[in-house]
Amino acid sequence: MNGIVYLTGAGPGDYRLLTLRGQEVLGRADVVIYDYLADPRLLEFAPPGAEKIYVGKKAADHTLSQDKIIDLLIAKAKEGKTVVRLKGGDPFVFGRGGEESRALHDAGLPFEIIPGVTSAIGALAYAGIPVTDRTAASSFAVVTGHEDPTKGHSSIHWDKLATAVDTLIFLMGVHNLPSITKQLITYGRPASTPAALVRWGTKADQETLVATVGDIAEKAAACHFQAPAVFIVGDVVALRPSMQWFDTKPLFGLTIAVTRTHAQAPALTHRLEELGARCLEVPTIRITPPTDDYQALDEAIGRLASYDWVIFTSTNGVDAFFHRLQHHGRDSQHAHSTPAVYLRPSAQQTASDKAHRSQYKRHHRLCNKFRHGTPLCAGRQQASQQTH
Amino acid sequence: MNGIVYLTGAGPGDYRLLTLRGQEVLGRADVVIYDYLADPRLLEFAPPGAEKIYVGKKAADHTLSQDKIIDLLIAKAKEGKTVVRLKGGDPFVFGRGGEESRALHDAGLPFEIIPGVTSAIGALAYAGIPVTDRTAASSFAVVTGHEDPTKGHSSIHWDKLATAVDTLIFLMGVHNLPSITKQLITYGRPASTPAALVRWGTKADQETLVATVGDIAEKAAACHFQAPAVFIVGDVVALRPSMQWFDTKPLFGLTIAVTRTHAQAPALTHRLEELGARCLEVPTIRITPPTDDYQALDEAIGRLASYDWVIFTSTNGVDAFFHRLQHHGRDSQHAHSTPAVYLRPSAQQTASDKAHRSQYKRHHRLCNKFRHGTPLCAGRQQASQQTH
Repeated sequence: MNGIVYLTGAGPGDYRLLTLRGQEVLGRADVVIYDYLADPRLLEFAPPGAEKIYVGKKAADHTLSQDKIIDLLIAKAKEGKTVVRLKGGDPFVFGRGGEESRALHDAGLPFEIIPGVTSAIGALAYAGIPVTDRTAASSFAVVTGHEDPTKGHSSIHWDKLATAVDTLIFLMGVHNLPSITKQLITYGRPASTPAALVRWGTKADQETLVATVGDIAEKAAACHFQAPAVFIVGDVVALRPSMQWFDTKPLFGLTIAVTRTHAQAPALTHRLEELGARCLEVPTIRITPPTDDYQALDEAIGRLASYDWVIFTSTNGVDAFFHRLQHHGRDSQHAHSTPAVYLRPSAQQTASDKAHRSQYKRHHRLCNKFRHGTPLCAGRQQASQQTH
Repeated sequence: MNGIVYLTGAGPGDYRLLTLRGQEVLGRADVVIYDYLADPRLLEFAPPGAEKIYVGKKAADHTLSQDKIIDLLIAKAKEGKTVVRLKGGDPFVFGRGGEESRALHDAGLPFEIIPGVTSAIGALAYAGIPVTDRTAASSFAVVTGHEDPTKGHSSIHWDKLATAVDTLIFLMGVHNLPSITKQLITYGRPASTPAALVRWGTKADQETLVATVGDIAEKAAACHFQAPAVFIVGDVVALRPSMQWFDTKPLFGLTIAVTRTHAQAPALTHRLEELGARCLEVPTIRITPPTDDYQALDEAIGRLASYDWVIFTSTNGVDAFFHRLQHHGRDSQHAHSTPAVYLRPSAQQTASDKAHRSQYKRHHRLCNKFRHGTPLCAGRQQASQQTH
């Protein structure tokens, strides 16, 4: 039986702009055939055992020709595989999704299109530039910036395009910027029209250059502004100062290495990302059982009733202690007669701590009694009264 | 402390085209302030306790004026609430997201923009029409169709627009279709150019009308084609026959009432939706405990060992029986000496049955032995030999 191919838009960069439908099909993919992706985390939605094939199209650098990509899609679908063909942005906005779906249709293979947020709109929104606005633009056009207007026959009607719509968006137009802006001015777009380049839009390393149609090519060259970028022309660019929200976040532009364990990093990473940081998870510690044996801990557990205090210095300590307690067939009730305090580095918890929080609810309840009002050096009798 | 407003694009209709980020912020919203939504299921991503305020903008029918909506956003954010402002499509594609974010900026309130899949691209993709294509279009423009070109000053430069780009997309342009097409032809777009109207794009009741610029207004009137719809002009429309995938699904166009219980419906609904059906969950049954008491069941459980067979006719029966067994402090091991058979209406299971499947793995294992080869009328002795 034939498989199916999902031609899926990955969105403009920020992996959280993937659609629910995109996540769903990635979650049951046998094969993911993907272009250059702005965020490799997208691939983590696929099952660990899924085959992941990079067919990388980064501007002119095609790892696999379009014909070969189509052959691959057909071959995998004919093997009965569930194939996700993952493309940056939207598959039908210069994504060659049309060619691929027609080839599948001609081969009699089922396919679905899963649209994505195009960078033509999404990347600009992250730069605080709306493509339309009641005060500044009631139309926009999206044009490939790959075409050099000075070379031979152009499929772009510059004489019309220059002034046809309020907002003009060129995808991947950095290289041809001088000739594009020249055409626009030649055909009537005022040189003073606001213009901007947005590179790595929606990502933590997003860069925005604001200028005018007249001087943006020069300014981009002066600061070595690189592709890939979206080039936008129109009065909407002038709205940016009162609409910036992403690149003004407190940690925007910072890259933070999160050294917590693999299991504990996401909660922190999530909070840092909300504040605009780019996070690299580089676990420098790993929580493992004791290398030798549990003798010291077991002895301590055996003498639990004789201690005045048990002090934990990390959630991992709490975790390990109560696991061992359970191993001995004792639950945390056994520990209740001994006052326990967990010195937490911070009282703040995130939503993703929830599972953790519920797991240790009982112990935390114990701890909270101490945190809220009871002196840490309270004697045994006073403490045990309070915990009951 | 001030709250935050997330100006969020809900996508073109199919709720699965919401972004992960959109789902995430909805999941922690205190307040959801939403326009007319093509799919009310989007609201289910918000916590049950969240305040949901409809400010409905369905064409001219504004429940709340734009000024009042802005006042509401500011008031809720000042109360410290996490506010999701949910809009169809993308907030910056004729979504008035610009006005709202500037008002928040001016009030000193934090906001974020969460782009969505615009119906200008997504709805057309579901109709098998790519907005760009290597063979047919290297540019597209998106224009509001609300403006009547025959009335006074137009912000649209029809003389340029008509031929400036390969693909022209008008959002919500059904009403003005005759005058829009007339302008296009007047300014040089051939009357023979393929054109289409897509209504309720991405939804199970999606309708597509294909014609030409010259005759689409007449055809739309003849079949009473209603708003809301996307109007598209360009050679890409001609690609539709070889790119249709959504409205050719086997159950497309059918509305199916799923009468299973609220808990059991989603598994079936999901499968039907994959096949193109529109599902209405109308539970006609509810599984509840016995209205009087458990006497009859308890007596039967008490005499369990004396039965030759226990026959279950639904998963709910299996569920209720083993729950009661546990209630009496007995687990399914106690039932093992009695042969059990569960007559399932279908042997097919979906992925979402997984939790259920694992819950009853033990019982199913028991049942499977009977299903595969043992006659249902097997005697007690033979059956119990096989289950051990």
